[in-house]
Order: sequence, then C-alpha cells, then structure tokens
Amino acid sequence: MIYTAGWIVTQDAARSVVENGALRVEGALVSEVGPAAEVLARHPGEPVRELGEAAILPGLVDAHTHVPMSAMRGAADDKALFAWLNEDVFPREARWEPRLLRAAARLSFAEMVRTGCTAFYDMYMLQENVFAAADEAGLRGVVGENVVRFFPQLGGATRDALFGRIRDNAAAWRGHPRLRGAVAPHAVYTTDPDTLRACRDLADEVGWQFGMHMSETRKETADCLAERGARPIPYCDSLGILRGDTSLFHCVDVDDADLAILRERGCVAVHNPASNMKLASGAAPVERLLGAGVPVALGTDGPASNNAQDMVREMWLAALLGKLASGDPTAVCAQTALDMATRHGASAIHDPLAGSLEPGKHADFFALDLRGPGMQPVHNVVSNAVYAATGLENRLTVVDGRELYRDGEWLSLDIGEVLAGARELREWAR
Amino acid sequence: MIYTAGWIVTQDAARSVVENGALRVEGALVSEVGPAAEVLARHPGEPVRELGEAAILPGLVDAHTHVPMSAMRGAADDKALFAWLNEDVFPREARWEPRLLRAAARLSFAEMVRTGCTAFYDMYMLQENVFAAADEAGLRGVVGENVVRFFPQLGGATRDALFGRIRDNAAAWRGHPRLRGAVAPHAVYTTDPDTLRACRDLADEVGWQFGMHMSETRKETADCLAERGARPIPYCDSLGILRGDTSLFHCVDVDDADLAILRERGCVAVHNPASNMKLASGAAPVERLLGAGVPVALGTDGPASNNAQDMVREMWLAALLGKLASGDPTAVCAQTALDMATRHGASAIHDPLAGSLEPGKHADFFALDLRGPGMQPVHNVVSNAVYAATGLENRLTVVDGRELYRDGEWLSLDIGEVLAGARELREWAR
Repeated sequence: MIYTAGWIVTQDAARSVVENGALRVEGALVSEVGPAAEVLARHPGEPVRELGEAAILPGLVDAHTHVPMSAMRGAADDKALFAWLNEDVFPREARWEPRLLRAAARLSFAEMVRTGCTAFYDMYMLQENVFAAADEAGLRGVVGENVVRFFPQLGGATRDALFGRIRDNAAAWRGHPRLRGAVAPHAVYTTDPDTLRACRDLADEVGWQFGMHMSETRKETADCLAERGARPIPYCDSLGILRGDTSLFHCVDVDDADLAILRERGCVAVHNPASNMKLASGAAPVERLLGAGVPVALGTDGPASNNAQDMVREMWLAALLGKLASGDPTAVCAQTALDMATRHGASAIHDPLAGSLEPGKHADFFALDLRGPGMQPVHNVVSNAVYAATGLENRLTVVDGRELYRDGEWLSLDIGEVLAGARELREWAR
Repeated sequence: MIYTAGWIVTQDAARSVVENGALRVEGALVSEVGPAAEVLARHPGEPVRELGEAAILPGLVDAHTHVPMSAMRGAADDKALFAWLNEDVFPREARWEPRLLRAAARLSFAEMVRTGCTAFYDMYMLQENVFAAADEAGLRGVVGENVVRFFPQLGGATRDALFGRIRDNAAAWRGHPRLRGAVAPHAVYTTDPDTLRACRDLADEVGWQFGMHMSETRKETADCLAERGARPIPYCDSLGILRGDTSLFHCVDVDDADLAILRERGCVAVHNPASNMKLASGAAPVERLLGAGVPVALGTDGPASNNAQDMVREMWLAALLGKLASGDPTAVCAQTALDMATRHGASAIHDPLAGSLEPGKHADFFALDLRGPGMQPVHNVVSNAVYAATGLENRLTVVDGRELYRDGEWLSLDIGEVLAGARELREWAR
C-alpha cells in the first residue's frame, strides 16, 4: 500500500519533510519514503490511499500512562496529590474487577488511536487485562506491572503471588509482535531497597524492561534524603537497578549529579507536563536533560490526572512549559517537542524501529488533516502539528501497516462496545 | 426552536447544570432553560433539535486576539518577542492589503466558530476589514483599533487621518446588533501621555470601549518606571484613562497596588496563558486578581503567538498554569476556568447579556459532543469540558439564535472561500 499526502514528516536524522510525498508500506514496515511522483512511478498498479492536504507523521508515543484510570476521568480534580489518592483513587481501586480494567484500557486505547498515538508505556496493576486490550487494539507498547512494598496489594496477596503473576504474564506474552512487559516499582517512597532489588532481578529473569516514577516532586527528594540518605536517583543507582532498559517517569526535581547518573546508566527520562502542572509539581528541566545527553520522552500520565491521553496537546504543552520554566522563548522548540513524542518516545519503549518513518522502520504513523481553518495556512507543518493541532485533526492511525482508525471509524476496536463499557465505568466509579 | 441535550451547563449564578435539559430560543434570546420533559410539554409542536449525548454551554468569549494574524500562523515561532516582531511580524504587516486582512479575519472567525467561541475582543489595524468579516461570520464582538504614537502607521499617515477613520468606522457600525468598537492604544511603551489621553477622549466621543495591552512583562514595568516614573497601571491611572469600560490584556506583572486600582476603576483583566508561556513572559496572578474583585477573562492572543484561537484548550491551559504558577493544585479549578471563558468574558466585552444561559440572555452557545472516547465517562461535565476536551468536539455554534456551525458545516461563512483565502495568505506571508 502507498499513502500519499501533501507533507510527510519523516523525523529521520536530518528531520526531512517531503512535500507531495508518498510512504510505501510492505507488510509491517516502511519500505520507501519520497516524492509521490517517484514512488508511484516505481510501483504502477499498487493500491494508493491519497490523503491530499494532510501531514503524515510518525505515530506518537505516550511514554507514561496508567490506562485503566480513564475510568476516573473527571471524577475528582483540583485536589492535592495525597488527598486525591486517598479520598478518590484508592477507594475506587479497591473495587476493580478484571472485566472493568479491560473496559477502561479499551477506552484509553480508543482515545489514543483517535489522536495519533501508536505506542504507549503503561504502568498499572493486574496487567494481563491491559495486555489483552492492547493486543485487541492493535497498538504497540510496554505493559508495566506496578509493584509496591505493601501486601496484600491489588496485584497479589504476597510478593510471591505478585511475582508469580508477572512470570505468568511474561510467559503468556513472550514473542508478541508489538507488546513487551516491564517490571515497574511504583516509586522510591512506596518501596524499599529489598523490593527494588527484587524487581530488578525479576525484570532480568523474565526479560522485561524496567521503569518507575522518579523525582516527581521536591517532597519526594526531601523524604528520600531523610529516609535513605540520598536523593532518589543516587539512591536507586546505589542499588544497581538503573540500566539501559530503564525509563524514569517525571524527573522534575533533578540536579546535575542526577543528570550525570542518568546519562552514565543510559536511562530515559519521561516528561509529563500536564500532570506536573495539574498537581503543581513543577517542570522537568527538558533542555538540561537533553543537553546532558539524556533522551526525554513525553507522556500524558494517567487520564485521571491530565485528563486526556492526547499526545498532540501534550507536545504543545511541553513546548509552552519548556519556555515558561526556563524563561527562554527559544527553549523546547516545535521540532524538539515532536522529537520528544517520536524519536525519544522510541527510546523510552526501547524499540529502535519506532519513532521515524524510514525504510525498515515500523509502519506506525498518523495523518493530520490540514483542511480545518485552525490548521491554515501551512507555513511550517511541524509548527502547525505542535502549536495549532488538537489531536482530533487526525484521520488515520496505522500500526505495523494495519489501519486502526480511518475517517471516523475505529477498525480494530469495536467503538460501540468501548462506549458501552464507558457507561458501565461511570456507574462503577460513582 | 428547542435544543435538547444530556447536559446544559447554564453558568447562572448558582452554576446550575441541567441533566437531560432543554434550551428554548425565541428570536435572538434564550427564553427557557430546564428539564427537557417540562420544556417540551409546555411547547408541543415546536421544532426540536435533539443533541443527545452532548453538553450545551454558553458560547466562549475570546477576550483578546488579533484575528488578522492568522495569516502568520507558524511562519515564525520559538523566538524572543522583539526578534519575532522586528524580523517576522513588522515586515509582513507593511505589506497588508485590505482584501487580505479580511481573508485572514475570516479564517480566524471560521476557527472560532468551529471551536465554540461566540464572541471576541479584537485589536488590530484597519479594522473596517475585521468589522466586515465579523458581520459576515455572525459573531459577537468588540473590534478594537490599535493606536501607537509613531506616524505614519498602518492605520493612518497622521493622527488626524487615523482618528478620522475611527470616527468613520464608529458611524458606519453604530447600532449593529452584535458588534461594538474600541479605541485600543497598543501599550504604555508604544504610546505617550498625549496619545493615551487622546485615545481616551476619542473613545468617549464616539461611544466606543477602551482596551490596551498592560503589564505583560517585567521589562515593560521596569521601562515604564524608568521612563514615566510609575508602574504601568498607576501611570495610566494618573492620566485618567482607566474606567469601567476598560479591558486590560495580559496583567502578568501586577502588584497589590495595581490590583487595588483595577478594582477601584472597574477594569477587567484578560489572561492569555498560551501566549504568555510561549513568549516566556510569566503568568498572570489569576487567583489574586479574582480575590481582589477584578474579573479575569481569557484570551488566545493572536494566532501567530499561540498558535490557535481555540478557547477550549485555553481554558485547560489557564487551569494548569494557575496551579503551577501558584504551587497550589486547588487553584484555578475547572469551574473557575469556565467562568473566565464565559461570565468574565462577558465582562471583558462589557455585554451583560452574554456569558450565561438564562431567560433573557443572548442565545449564544455551543455543544460539545461527548460520544468520543476522550470525553468518556462523564463524571463531571465541566471537568470534561475544561480538562479533556480539545475544542473540535464542538458540533453546534449559535449566536443570537442563529446557527453558525453544525456538524461539519459552516452556515454563515463560505468555508471554501475561507480556505482559498488561506492559500493566498500562505503565498503573501512567505
């Protein structure tokens, strides 16, 4: 299949944008990207989907989310973190049922597919449900199982039970073409050294990635200094748990020594501007992280603290917050925000075939319709994608060459079933 | 005509939300709002538009914009303010033609109509073009003519010529059912006391409102202190130009004495979160302004420094920035953000019939479609409108009882002409 469009934003090393371009897909991979006239001439008679005045971009990577929390979207806002967790989140989480977890994950995946997100890194509990929903949705992703030191927890009555379930999930989903797993200890303040080391060992044992919330607030840093005698990143490094397979969510309160460790260990930072603003946590130092050689991906965080999983508006916010927080209007430019959502997103899910549209890469992309008045004129298609688009301009989402959404139709998920599930979740979360 | 919907967010004094509600329109005004069953029973046989799973809200007011600047959307970003003005904006503005100004204004109005904005406060030059485009679009608004102290300027070769044109526009548009004018001196740093007093006198003479950029950056304050011996607000107050008809755009760098003057004079502050973040100017102290009794409306600023005129995403940003800037996650809650975009917006355009849906108020409203996965579940419709919506969920925009947009169709503007104009503007702005 050949897709043609007014603009193809490749996100290759040179950040080439092909005007009047074509993208050729063979199976699950991109086989050619170039001027439409040339690609079409090389492959006469091949099926063509003409997108016209649209921009094809690499699929966006939501590198930190908690997809089942879509069930609680809007159930409680405008509260301090711990009041929100204790009064609103934990009481509901105690009532989860697997069927509802899967319905909530489906709802989130339907939103991602709608808004041009093709890959995600999730972190939640009882993740066999998210694996199943992601497989059904056709998305790419890393499914992280959350671990805290307190038992019983939703994921298991004992650590043996929880780790046994993780081993079972690892065995069940090993070799999946798009889905990987992660062991995801929640944070330094909900774990202890033994839990963190055990999580690291389990990840190595089952061949999963490793991810955790890190340095989200100044309070986290102060508490860690008081309790563990070190800031969160040096503390974790002293346990030997930070590696090249590790993604760290938030990284708001990081100092230069923290940056040096992240770079040395090959970790990826994941910035969550909406969540950090909504909870008044602060702003990750994006330019300092990038300047230190640390990839900085972008995530929505859970839809109960955002309240969306729309990576297009997250790119906009990352650019705006980067400027405000640094006092520099040239910081986190549109190209950097797009890099965070694509190339650095690929780093966060540790998938070298994601993040750009080049021969041999995953055929994962979306297409922004540029015919709405809010997307005109097109002086700079990357600027319009980052600063003007909302996400709902998307008219096509493709993963591994398979169309998941096209012009108002969901092609993998049954949208009627998704919305029926949302109504059931509304009752559940009351 | 009766409109029914799952939710009607009235924005009345009690902030009532009517579930399964109906809104009845008689001519240009709302005549009834209440439970659908009751309203329909009182008016059998009246035409009904059933919106189903949607939320009707009062039309949003974009209380500060520069609509012709849509021509430059994305032409230059990620630059410091003065480099951007001198290198990108001013050279293009020297090339304006009336026909293109009108095309750019139409493009902006098409975007506003699409995203649920029903009223605006504009500030630009040669504003007979914006008057004409706004009349054509069917929107409500205040059309402000920008004045600086330097001549010749785009609006006139001399002050007499410029003021003569303002008098002509005032005469031409006097008594319009939806459009008012404003004399809008640009800012303290581009005017002098004589220009400001003359603008005030002209506004009083022609019966127009008065608006200006105010206290946008700390540099503006420092320069005003150095040049005029006072901060911008006390300086303007000493000239006697601040009144109950006055809207002040930005109000980022305001101290307690400034707040007291704004309250005393009955001025309205207009917050522009995206523009202030993009230019790294800072954040208006929204809660402090509101606490001092100063209405705080919300604006997009021009589409070249935003880069959209989408008041839905601006509400989201106002809430997030309010929390981040104050360090308090309970600040600028969803209801406050909606108030800013509706009730305080009505204050900014000085129209007591705008801003809420109650009998006798303007029939100005829009309808968010809640059937997309990103708008589900509906635990709190105000939260979903502020935190989850993007603007493109809007499926109906009505001003003065007239439908301007419905389900993909623009009903006042010719969208084909608008998009052809955008292509011409692309060439013009290269």
